[in-house]
Amino acid sequence: MKRVYFAGSIRGGRMGAELYHHIIAYVKRTAVVLTEHVGDLNLQESATDQAIYAQDTAWLREAELVIAECTFPSLGVGYELAYAEAHGKPCHIFYDKGKARLSAMLSGNPRFTIHPYENEDEIYPMLDEALKR
Amino acid sequence: MKRVYFAGSIRGGRMGAELYHHIIAYVKRTAVVLTEHVGDLNLQESATDQAIYAQDTAWLREAELVIAECTFPSLGVGYELAYAEAHGKPCHIFYDKGKARLSAMLSGNPRFTIHPYENEDEIYPMLDEALKR
Repeated sequence: MKRVYFAGSIRGGRMGAELYHHIIAYVKRTAVVLTEHVGDLNLQESATDQAIYAQDTAWLREAELVIAECTFPSLGVGYELAYAEAHGKPCHIFYDKGKARLSAMLSGNPRFTIHPYENEDEIYPMLDEALKR
Repeated sequence: MKRVYFAGSIRGGRMGAELYHHIIAYVKRTAVVLTEHVGDLNLQESATDQAIYAQDTAWLREAELVIAECTFPSLGVGYELAYAEAHGKPCHIFYDKGKARLSAMLSGNPRFTIHPYENEDEIYPMLDEALKR
């Protein structure tokens, strides 16, 4: 099974946590999600920032695919996407085009695959495609 | 004069625009700021996302130093910091510790220099130090 790094906002705000939870549950049916905690609705951080950084960058290097939900701004998600790109990982970026205007540093990057959506239902067939590649 | 890439939120929200403007004006007294538009209080984007991405990544490669104001979450700023790191650029990150909890992907990264502050006044001596190195 493919190893997937799912990226979503944590300290930037948990407005998307329920959506992250749905996406992770869907991806887990056919792949391994290394970052399942991002969709935990009661996420409690206990590790030091240094340990989180070391673990997350190790998972990024291990992943075969990055899936990022980018409707809500997040420094960590932006960092993770550039880190993944620098390590040659395919990155799939989802965002609700009715709620957000995506950063040009993501939408203007020819190496990222951008998936705008209007309704959550549209995400799942696009995920199937991304996971199939 | 040193060439500085200043990073601040644009599409993520312009809550910090006035602060960015102050920081850029201060840095410009002794260095060249490649991204002066980030502090423009009436910023209008006219280029395509592809052109913005190409220009900003060219400036990141050209810069000798990155200064990022990270109080407000931003996908673009997170991306820029990882891109700068991958190109070996020293990165100095400022944030208001009373307003934000910084992403562990930044605060836990041993290659970034983190400057928490409580009042804007504290930023300027720390900028002097960063620019002197």
